[in-house]
Amino acid sequence: MKALVYYGPGKRAWEERPKPVLREDKDAIVRVTRTTICGTDLHILKGDVPEVENGRILGHEGIGVVEETGSGVRNFRKGDRVLISCITSDGTCEYCKKGMYSHCEKGGWILGHTIDGTQAEFVRIPHADTSLYRISEGVNEDALVMLSDVFPTGFECGVLNGEIKPGDTVAIIGAGPIGLAALLTSKFYSPARTIMADTDAGRLASAKELGATDTVLSDGKASERIMELTDGRGVDVAIEAVGVPSTFELCESIIAPGGHIASIGVFGEPVDLHMERLWSQNITLTTRLVDTVTTPMLLKSVQSGTLHPERLVTHRFKLDEIMKAYDTFSHAREEKALKVVLES
Amino acid sequence: MKALVYYGPGKRAWEERPKPVLREDKDAIVRVTRTTICGTDLHILKGDVPEVENGRILGHEGIGVVEETGSGVRNFRKGDRVLISCITSDGTCEYCKKGMYSHCEKGGWILGHTIDGTQAEFVRIPHADTSLYRISEGVNEDALVMLSDVFPTGFECGVLNGEIKPGDTVAIIGAGPIGLAALLTSKFYSPARTIMADTDAGRLASAKELGATDTVLSDGKASERIMELTDGRGVDVAIEAVGVPSTFELCESIIAPGGHIASIGVFGEPVDLHMERLWSQNITLTTRLVDTVTTPMLLKSVQSGTLHPERLVTHRFKLDEIMKAYDTFSHAREEKALKVVLES
Amino acid sequence: MKALVYYGPGKRAWEERPKPVLREDKDAIVRVTRTTICGTDLHILKGDVPEVENGRILGHEGIGVVEETGSGVRNFRKGDRVLISCITSDGTCEYCKKGMYSHCEKGGWILGHTIDGTQAEFVRIPHADTSLYRISEGVNEDALVMLSDVFPTGFECGVLNGEIKPGDTVAIIGAGPIGLAALLTSKFYSPARTIMADTDAGRLASAKELGATDTVLSDGKASERIMELTDGRGVDVAIEAVGVPSTFELCESIIAPGGHIASIGVFGEPVDLHMERLWSQNITLTTRLVDTVTTPMLLKSVQSGTLHPERLVTHRFKLDEIMKAYDTFSHAREEKALKVVLES
Amino acid sequence: MKALVYYGPGKRAWEERPKPVLREDKDAIVRVTRTTICGTDLHILKGDVPEVENGRILGHEGIGVVEETGSGVRNFRKGDRVLISCITSDGTCEYCKKGMYSHCEKGGWILGHTIDGTQAEFVRIPHADTSLYRISEGVNEDALVMLSDVFPTGFECGVLNGEIKPGDTVAIIGAGPIGLAALLTSKFYSPARTIMADTDAGRLASAKELGATDTVLSDGKASERIMELTDGRGVDVAIEAVGVPSTFELCESIIAPGGHIASIGVFGEPVDLHMERLWSQNITLTTRLVDTVTTPMLLKSVQSGTLHPERLVTHRFKLDEIMKAYDTFSHAREEKALKVVLES
Repeated sequence: MKALVYYGPGKRAWEERPKPVLREDKDAIVRVTRTTICGTDLHILKGDVPEVENGRILGHEGIGVVEETGSGVRNFRKGDRVLISCITSDGTCEYCKKGMYSHCEKGGWILGHTIDGTQAEFVRIPHADTSLYRISEGVNEDALVMLSDVFPTGFECGVLNGEIKPGDTVAIIGAGPIGLAALLTSKFYSPARTIMADTDAGRLASAKELGATDTVLSDGKASERIMELTDGRGVDVAIEAVGVPSTFELCESIIAPGGHIASIGVFGEPVDLHMERLWSQNITLTTRLVDTVTTPMLLKSVQSGTLHPERLVTHRFKLDEIMKAYDTFSHAREEKALKVVLES
Repeated sequence: MKALVYYGPGKRAWEERPKPVLREDKDAIVRVTRTTICGTDLHILKGDVPEVENGRILGHEGIGVVEETGSGVRNFRKGDRVLISCITSDGTCEYCKKGMYSHCEKGGWILGHTIDGTQAEFVRIPHADTSLYRISEGVNEDALVMLSDVFPTGFECGVLNGEIKPGDTVAIIGAGPIGLAALLTSKFYSPARTIMADTDAGRLASAKELGATDTVLSDGKASERIMELTDGRGVDVAIEAVGVPSTFELCESIIAPGGHIASIGVFGEPVDLHMERLWSQNITLTTRLVDTVTTPMLLKSVQSGTLHPERLVTHRFKLDEIMKAYDTFSHAREEKALKVVLES
Repeated sequence: MKALVYYGPGKRAWEERPKPVLREDKDAIVRVTRTTICGTDLHILKGDVPEVENGRILGHEGIGVVEETGSGVRNFRKGDRVLISCITSDGTCEYCKKGMYSHCEKGGWILGHTIDGTQAEFVRIPHADTSLYRISEGVNEDALVMLSDVFPTGFECGVLNGEIKPGDTVAIIGAGPIGLAALLTSKFYSPARTIMADTDAGRLASAKELGATDTVLSDGKASERIMELTDGRGVDVAIEAVGVPSTFELCESIIAPGGHIASIGVFGEPVDLHMERLWSQNITLTTRLVDTVTTPMLLKSVQSGTLHPERLVTHRFKLDEIMKAYDTFSHAREEKALKVVLES
Repeated sequence: MKALVYYGPGKRAWEERPKPVLREDKDAIVRVTRTTICGTDLHILKGDVPEVENGRILGHEGIGVVEETGSGVRNFRKGDRVLISCITSDGTCEYCKKGMYSHCEKGGWILGHTIDGTQAEFVRIPHADTSLYRISEGVNEDALVMLSDVFPTGFECGVLNGEIKPGDTVAIIGAGPIGLAALLTSKFYSPARTIMADTDAGRLASAKELGATDTVLSDGKASERIMELTDGRGVDVAIEAVGVPSTFELCESIIAPGGHIASIGVFGEPVDLHMERLWSQNITLTTRLVDTVTTPMLLKSVQSGTLHPERLVTHRFKLDEIMKAYDTFSHAREEKALKVVLES
């Protein structure tokens, strides 16, 4: 089969690889019908994720059709259409029992990381019963592929951890796919106001279309502007969706007393936490690797038409055009790209 | 009357001052029968709290007897025995309605800060109906004076914000009065294990007596030791009860995935938050100026004999020995002092 | 001034009464600019609420302008436009401090019940600082008068107590004003499906227009139909908005394992609780007299345009046509009436 | 092997049966080292649980040693010492993912109910990975066998559902094993007062020894006495641990506004719910078949010495004396029996 293979910083190839086979009795082999590229894949290609070995097939998102199942798989069989979760969970460890699949002792984020991933014609999924989700016919497939990672991430790490309540004023810092997924899912809790900040005016325009009530260009004065927009009060919830110190500190500077800072970003360095000011501000700050515990609810919402994740899809390619798709996604700003979908 | 007056960094006097009078119709004048000294009073004397003006009477803790009430006071009258909350709340603003009295638009921490305080024979209490608590006869008065600040602070900022659950492993960093109040109130939620860390072996001995299951001397290896004690897993809840970067970073280094860091300390400078590691650890970090919303519950627990705050009282003085009491409390380590009680 | 006065079962009069005067220093006198009639007023007129004395001015809803304030009122003054809460709270008692204003030791539901109410040109409001809400110019006044009672009631007793979550299937039994307020406010939490049941096809048509996804005529087969609509699974949340045994038992019969029954109705008799079946169904059942703690949030949502309570207003009268308004509201089905607004 | 077999109402035998064999690859065969008898077993013997077929081996509690595992079992192997949960969960269905194992689509309460149970020398445990818990050497084995059912039931259905908070006043109606397990685990949350009511003075004496602050004989005046004990206020939490209408109505009559009624009892008939009074009392009522989600926490608490479930064990027998053990347990009052332990 063909697969997108990582060969060290800056090096990737679309090449022939052996089709995966069952290794454990809880494995399933899935034929990938749609996948996508994540910002994390670009981080890997920059060499930022050293535990990814040369020769690894990338990708942790996708939907497909079950091709074969191990003897221990109960809930799926050949021919079932499935959503692949970016997080593998065995369903039996202490963390899984608490709903913290991200830290599953036998799983977690392994696809396209420590085992071969979904940017290929076929993929082996360990612990299939607890790591795949059945999908029904007739549902928008672009929407579904967004449920592998980007929507649970925006929703769990941003919206749920931020504890957005009806009537709240929310700021989302970063209008990339994750920030926009947080925006779309924040509406589940009816905030009165959602302010988005980004350095890219194009992305802010997308944010406006997708329902942001206000947008702020991050040009060094974002903090002042957000404070003005809130009459000096600050925001109830600040969602960090970039992952660098400056955007984190922006969140610190605009949070109202009693507010929540929900960090989604993947950080490469420490940040300054201004405890000399925040100690008395009664704030809550959260971090989270997505658990994908909300995938069933998000699936239900897509099926009932209350959520439209496909609105983030800007580009579509055939799977064997993936090298080109990576080029497009790597130049997201110039290409005005949010999410790219690859179809087999 | 006599009062302890602040005259700029390092300067305090026990001197004659006019007895306070009613200014607003919701005020009460309280004759102070017992008060105490807080670590924050020492900070003020160091000049760390610049908004405290020269000539200010210090103190925000105490119990007493109502002497006089304004026409708008409904719940108290002359002769009532009362507990004075360190936080004044008007009960009508947006923050008070949310139970966040610390940020009351007309109150908050004002006693011994922006208005005259309780280290005096009499004190004026604004918004008396919502800032005083009735106390019954026959309850240990040393216990009650601990409920003005130190116990609600340890409990709300440490135990409640840390969301301690039965069976949890908890670390409390700092075995001063606040850390020990967190220890005693942590027992309300039955953690399996409570580890206390401090640089002072004497305070660790007190912690052990008060029920810590383990103690760790903070000599640069505290992190390693706590990780060993937890088989490399870390703690479910880390309570920061000092307020300096090194103890904050100790909390960061020992927190288990999914854990809570509850910061109680009053910080004077920023800390390094290691987001490059914590971003994927699903942690929750909280800060809080005490709201004193739990004062009624703590009072009930003292009255029913389930909480014994008087165990923190190590020294007792007459009110007019307060200059000496400050000396003792300023040399807490040498004097083996935790809380000092001043009695009129 | 003119007022609507109760004179025993079936007897009411629109007659001259003395204008109210300040009695306590926390009172305010409000000139009523808009009021409405509640189903509870009809209950009183039937004689179902015996504690209402002859000669009582009815009404517990309304907006108006402050005419005069007692010396203890801090937050309002003459000329302020205000929303009157149906629940009076003193803000200082144990229940108020817990946010349970409904059981305020000095307030609760007293307007038009144990003291004179709002269906008059003027009304005296005790504990004004904590029982009135400031309203801004330019907001739809029909919407605002719906926030005195019907919307907080539908929202707190139905939606919040039912703990509606995104993706849930909700049934609301009773499509009167309260049920429809629950419907409109349920959208704050984005349920996937909202089924409304009523015996009146006209009200079901209104429910559909207001956003119910399904409607079911309550003709003895409602339970079967709701079970069919949910593939035999039942609903996550059942909201009882009528107050009679048959509708309560309908809720019991359609609740899914783990579901919530939130009762809003005012009951006059006991109901059969089928514990022989429900004991193992892990259900939660709640009752509640509205606390109006969510009034600030509802006000914010009306002002930001996310909530449109005025959609329930079907009829409008001048205040001195109130006798006619009562006739209309008493024949709600024939008149196709939901809420009637009375304007001064 | 020998087993206790049900042969219709009133008929049981201790007789030879074939040793169970693996049927599914997730099964384990466990050699039972300790088991006990549950009140539910007596219900079965009365014929109250018609789905139990003649020939069924009874029992859903026990500890033992793994004898053999199916090919799909990952977490256990021959020789492991294990606690058997009374609830079987497959860990993959919608209910299991929500932590509601009681309603597992492939499990739930099946042992000694729809499949053969634990009152035998060996038992087959389906979905072993998610239905067994590893136990360590040196822990009191009588304590451990209490964790199969009675302690999770008292804790989850009574204490957790009742949302007991520090300082609360709690009433537990019924001082049998389940009520006493609720009493012992209520201490995890430090209520100020725990009142126990029962018709048996002997059991009330046990309750007092186990830490009840007050006891009330249920002789028709229990409601009055509990109201007196609470100065007419009622209790914050009422736990129903019997399962008949009169005890349920006792709970209704003593609950304070805002209180929780947590029902643990297994009911055979409907109860009268006095909505004509309760509609305005802001109460929460819960039912629950135990999920055993708290088993890991309870195990931890037994191991750390904070919980002593063995205090409920009053009688001990060899496994082959089980006919006699049933006689004793059936005459609990006369025999002063709480829990009986059977040891192989």
